[in-house]
Amino acid sequence: MNTLTVDLGTRSYPIYIGQALLGKPELLEKYISGQQVMLVSNETVAPLYLQTVLDMLAGFETATVILPDGEQFKNLDTLNTIFSALLENRFNRDCTLIALGGGVVGDITGFAAASYQRGVPFLQIPTTLLAQVDSSVGGKTGVNHPQGKNMIGAFHQPRCVLIDTNTLDTLDDRQLAAGLAEVIKYGLIHDADFFAWLETNMDALKARDKQALGYAIERSCAIKAEIVAADERESGKRALLNLGHTFGHAIETGTGYGTWLHGEAVATGMLMAADLSARHGWLQAEAVQRTEQLLQRAGLPTTPPESMNEEQFRQLMSIDKKVIGGNLRLVLLKNMGEGIITGDFRQELLSETLNMGS
Amino acid sequence: MNTLTVDLGTRSYPIYIGQALLGKPELLEKYISGQQVMLVSNETVAPLYLQTVLDMLAGFETATVILPDGEQFKNLDTLNTIFSALLENRFNRDCTLIALGGGVVGDITGFAAASYQRGVPFLQIPTTLLAQVDSSVGGKTGVNHPQGKNMIGAFHQPRCVLIDTNTLDTLDDRQLAAGLAEVIKYGLIHDADFFAWLETNMDALKARDKQALGYAIERSCAIKAEIVAADERESGKRALLNLGHTFGHAIETGTGYGTWLHGEAVATGMLMAADLSARHGWLQAEAVQRTEQLLQRAGLPTTPPESMNEEQFRQLMSIDKKVIGGNLRLVLLKNMGEGIITGDFRQELLSETLNMGS
Repeated sequence: MNTLTVDLGTRSYPIYIGQALLGKPELLEKYISGQQVMLVSNETVAPLYLQTVLDMLAGFETATVILPDGEQFKNLDTLNTIFSALLENRFNRDCTLIALGGGVVGDITGFAAASYQRGVPFLQIPTTLLAQVDSSVGGKTGVNHPQGKNMIGAFHQPRCVLIDTNTLDTLDDRQLAAGLAEVIKYGLIHDADFFAWLETNMDALKARDKQALGYAIERSCAIKAEIVAADERESGKRALLNLGHTFGHAIETGTGYGTWLHGEAVATGMLMAADLSARHGWLQAEAVQRTEQLLQRAGLPTTPPESMNEEQFRQLMSIDKKVIGGNLRLVLLKNMGEGIITGDFRQELLSETLNMGS
Repeated sequence: MNTLTVDLGTRSYPIYIGQALLGKPELLEKYISGQQVMLVSNETVAPLYLQTVLDMLAGFETATVILPDGEQFKNLDTLNTIFSALLENRFNRDCTLIALGGGVVGDITGFAAASYQRGVPFLQIPTTLLAQVDSSVGGKTGVNHPQGKNMIGAFHQPRCVLIDTNTLDTLDDRQLAAGLAEVIKYGLIHDADFFAWLETNMDALKARDKQALGYAIERSCAIKAEIVAADERESGKRALLNLGHTFGHAIETGTGYGTWLHGEAVATGMLMAADLSARHGWLQAEAVQRTEQLLQRAGLPTTPPESMNEEQFRQLMSIDKKVIGGNLRLVLLKNMGEGIITGDFRQELLSETLNMGS
């Protein structure tokens, strides 16, 4: 087992990464306040791992909520089912929530914890690659609004993140690929060597080689922990983690939540960001090509949906959280391994990128 | 004009109290980030003051949301209408929200600000006595759940609180009385001299004497600011501000939100707390009598609803935010002007108090 720390002063917490960690209750127990534990999962993950986690919680008063599976259910109505379950079970302000599942379960559960009785603790047990390398770490929680992805939420850090890499055995290929999109992101924004490592090891990752996956998860979490520790509330550098997300969120909202997986939309969004960077002369054509090839080898889409036109993209992008004073800023690439946040791009070049799919 | 400060380090903010402050845009302008301002009010207050406030915001890009009026609308659905309006108007993370109205408008708007794009600033312009002396100050925001009052929310401090006492001219008598309940609360928990002052000045307050109301508001805000500064997130002393609220929230939820006004339920709850304190020998019978008389002179109810029995009270009180480790704690009185938070009360005496109404 490896342990990383997200260094946030009094709100610091560990990320445990290893095989068969779901059999080790001592990793969870010390982070649980009080006696009441609400376990939140979804209908796909619960049949696989719910009982195992409940077995780790012997001695606590437990209750469970099983959410429907999919991005289209990441909304206020689903959030309210968690509040109802907490109140029906008379859970008090000293209860603890545990998220067992992918990014949707983690984001909703975290926001429920941030808001229930104005804030209770929660723990993350991510079971998808995407949640393990990205969404379970860093405290961004929330739900979608029909008009915008992740528009309602809170910063609320978990007490610990428990990553059992054995849970990837039950992940389907499409979900595995979606997680690899965020892994590739870390290489692009922060670590050219890691990108090169991914080029060398993509076949092993796709074949679910445990050692390769373990290293990719650890390296991804380490980069994320470093960036989050430097800028918890995204007043600066943390926005780098949004490479491809402004385009990607527009795709997810524009095509209807759940049609594209988040990681798929981010993959296409990252290629659009690379393309736009290259059009400005900031990134070499070869780097764009390497990005496209690596994403495709991971099994990810790299072309925006034909159903979306430039106008729809621009409208959806105008409510991006990085807009300041009415000006959109984007995460672009100055070099392989070097992301930048900038509003200093040319509109006619953006138009060309937004029309990549048509 | 008087200015008080809520001292919370980098999140400190002023409370401005005076007549005709709605004509002074300079009091608001410096607290507004960015250019986009969303003004949230309700259908009762908007016809009276919305235009005046919009006139103060010349030069900003403004939009408005008008909520239905009443505690029964303080829920996730109404909250979502604010999010929808923000997104329809393409409001970004550098927008500012302004709450113009009573406690319901302030609580919902504050929670919308806490959650929109994971947090934007907001200002409070309270127009009811209750909001002016209590709910607009201190950063408690949120909405109700059918099973529990204020169960969903966040701590999110406003940037400033602007109290124009002229707005009380349009307040109906029942709402004025409801506000006086929270004013009396400050005397009971913290300041016996203020309680005595209220006994002397209750007729002037009921007659809406501006000087008397101004003093009562200022003294109430000063006590609240002091307590909030000492314990922002209610890990201790701040719970004193909940005198009467555990009983009162049970009454509001049990009779259906909007049937009893919050201040009415708190008035009855405070008398129940005084009664229970006296049954333990902590408070003299004379103090209970003085409390009952002052509440009644203010025009407030002091008897729990006949429709509620002990069992319903106990069930609703079991999810109170002050429960720790399954044990209910209550705010009781050791003396006139001296509140205490304690789980050390006798169940059979609580039963007697809960049966006061039957």
